[in-house]
Amino acid sequence: MTTGLPARAALIALDWGTSSLRAYRLDGAGRTLDTRHLPWGIMRLPQPLQEGAATANALSGFELAFEQACGDWLRAEPNLPVIACGMVGSAQGWQEAAYLDVPVDLPRIGTLLTRVERAGATPVHIVPGLIQRHGLPNVMRGEETQVFGVLFDQPGGGADDVLIGLPGTHSKWVNARRGRVTHFDTFMTGEVYAALRGHTILGRTMTEAPAPDMAAFERGVKVAGAPAGRAGVLSTIFSTRALGLTGELAGGAQADYLSGLLIGHEVAALADMLRQQGELPRIVLCGDDTLCQRYLVALHHYGLGTPEQARNATERGLWHLAVSAGLVPAAAESSPPISTKETP
Amino acid sequence: MTTGLPARAALIALDWGTSSLRAYRLDGAGRTLDTRHLPWGIMRLPQPLQEGAATANALSGFELAFEQACGDWLRAEPNLPVIACGMVGSAQGWQEAAYLDVPVDLPRIGTLLTRVERAGATPVHIVPGLIQRHGLPNVMRGEETQVFGVLFDQPGGGADDVLIGLPGTHSKWVNARRGRVTHFDTFMTGEVYAALRGHTILGRTMTEAPAPDMAAFERGVKVAGAPAGRAGVLSTIFSTRALGLTGELAGGAQADYLSGLLIGHEVAALADMLRQQGELPRIVLCGDDTLCQRYLVALHHYGLGTPEQARNATERGLWHLAVSAGLVPAAAESSPPISTKETP
Repeated sequence: MTTGLPARAALIALDWGTSSLRAYRLDGAGRTLDTRHLPWGIMRLPQPLQEGAATANALSGFELAFEQACGDWLRAEPNLPVIACGMVGSAQGWQEAAYLDVPVDLPRIGTLLTRVERAGATPVHIVPGLIQRHGLPNVMRGEETQVFGVLFDQPGGGADDVLIGLPGTHSKWVNARRGRVTHFDTFMTGEVYAALRGHTILGRTMTEAPAPDMAAFERGVKVAGAPAGRAGVLSTIFSTRALGLTGELAGGAQADYLSGLLIGHEVAALADMLRQQGELPRIVLCGDDTLCQRYLVALHHYGLGTPEQARNATERGLWHLAVSAGLVPAAAESSPPISTKETP
Repeated sequence: MTTGLPARAALIALDWGTSSLRAYRLDGAGRTLDTRHLPWGIMRLPQPLQEGAATANALSGFELAFEQACGDWLRAEPNLPVIACGMVGSAQGWQEAAYLDVPVDLPRIGTLLTRVERAGATPVHIVPGLIQRHGLPNVMRGEETQVFGVLFDQPGGGADDVLIGLPGTHSKWVNARRGRVTHFDTFMTGEVYAALRGHTILGRTMTEAPAPDMAAFERGVKVAGAPAGRAGVLSTIFSTRALGLTGELAGGAQADYLSGLLIGHEVAALADMLRQQGELPRIVLCGDDTLCQRYLVALHHYGLGTPEQARNATERGLWHLAVSAGLVPAAAESSPPISTKETP
């Protein structure tokens, strides 16, 4: 826990997903003063004590996690506003925050926060997710905040066409123009990789490798664009096993090859769709650095250049959203983010 | 067990895969006299008794399973030849049977059986698998026998171009011309379906349905050919969840919709590849009847007509292979298969 709070804060911002909770204490210029990373995702909240559970004053798992994330920050500065994004606003979350329909002007998101009332304590403002109803429906929760952070840290506030890539368990690719989200796609690449590795025959011949095998990864990336890639990913993934049987791919290289196959198919499909739409947009990547490095390899291979990488997009997004919602004054909004420090 | 063997047999044929063992007793015209279905796949063989295991005469799991499958048949007619196909010839099998390289003339397979010697008892002849080394490597074990059965039961012995579809855990699509296998593709559709359903977020909103929802299946089939299908299967599968969130797809319909998505992507890719090659071949489907019905829907939707279905392909293939290997005389080879009866 932080003891003594040297700088005066202006906002508490929570990135509250399925498997973890990150809390940020931000100053009046949107700079991060403190960060905490807790394991209390909405599907694994702390359990209320049994004796307490019987009383009317028992705290819910959400309240318990919230207390650990920022209770001391709020006791030191009781009037701080609190904003949160992610699955905390889902049907399984603290309180459901409705989806906004795409296309949507991003500043509108800040005017439609869902307020969780907390019996005399500071309320929590939850950011809505986005839903796309044309074509096959699509949804996001949490990524809209990252997109907000990326766009409003850009020179000109994201005036030009931009494609924001958010690789992860479910990768999102978000098209935006002049602060308006116009379309997005989801690829279940990360989760499919884990399911194939853990629960199909492909995992059986894989062995642990001491370090990532980026040559095997690149070999996989190229398959989607090769003649054999036309059969699609349901077919090419079998080559992970067949190359092993023919002695052309060691067990320790198979996981990275499979990772390359999947990311390659994702990025090749994306490149095809972008080319059908005409001029290629500027691309910004945002996410885990190691994973972004893999996507950079694939984007380069499929002719999508070398995108820039955005950092601290979630906390920047939560800050800009709080400003646009009037939770904090816009005083020094254009200040760049500073590096964060972790406290337990 | 069969007591009394009314008709004289000419061949014992075994279809011995990873998870089960089927034994056939065939007469001199290739007709099935008896069938047995045992759970002794090569990955789940019966365990030798502990006391027996210490002696030199202990039978291996393969011998124990073999005895249950056809020991009595061989005691009644000790000189019957025995042929086997499938994973029993893999590196984890009874004895490894080398792969033959594609393209391959099918009658050649029959001349290259691997003989398992059994200490004074009847030997077992194992059919080799096929390997394709051009492009991405690909392998099969067992399906080459089904292809043999389909082709050599065709009028003219499979003289024309034919594409044989073998849907299953790993679907195979095998191109053959004048008795020669020229190319094959593998799609891991069945196994990917099981992994997505059992081990990703897609399974969480699925509920059991009293009967298959073929309308949901067809809806999924069509997606691969719709504009949204261009993003590829890593993307479209997420619509299983998103359509549930928007109330457009009930929990009980989601599994069949996902099945349709995957089979649709497989068949759409196949149709694209066939059109790039020029004239469409005649298609023959071979496999589980319920699954073949699903593939017929998808093949029809993607303009590949209404293929015929082959039945009893494995036992017919084992018969024709035994004839081509000289294990049995070719006497009445052209007789059609008769219906089988199951004995425990």
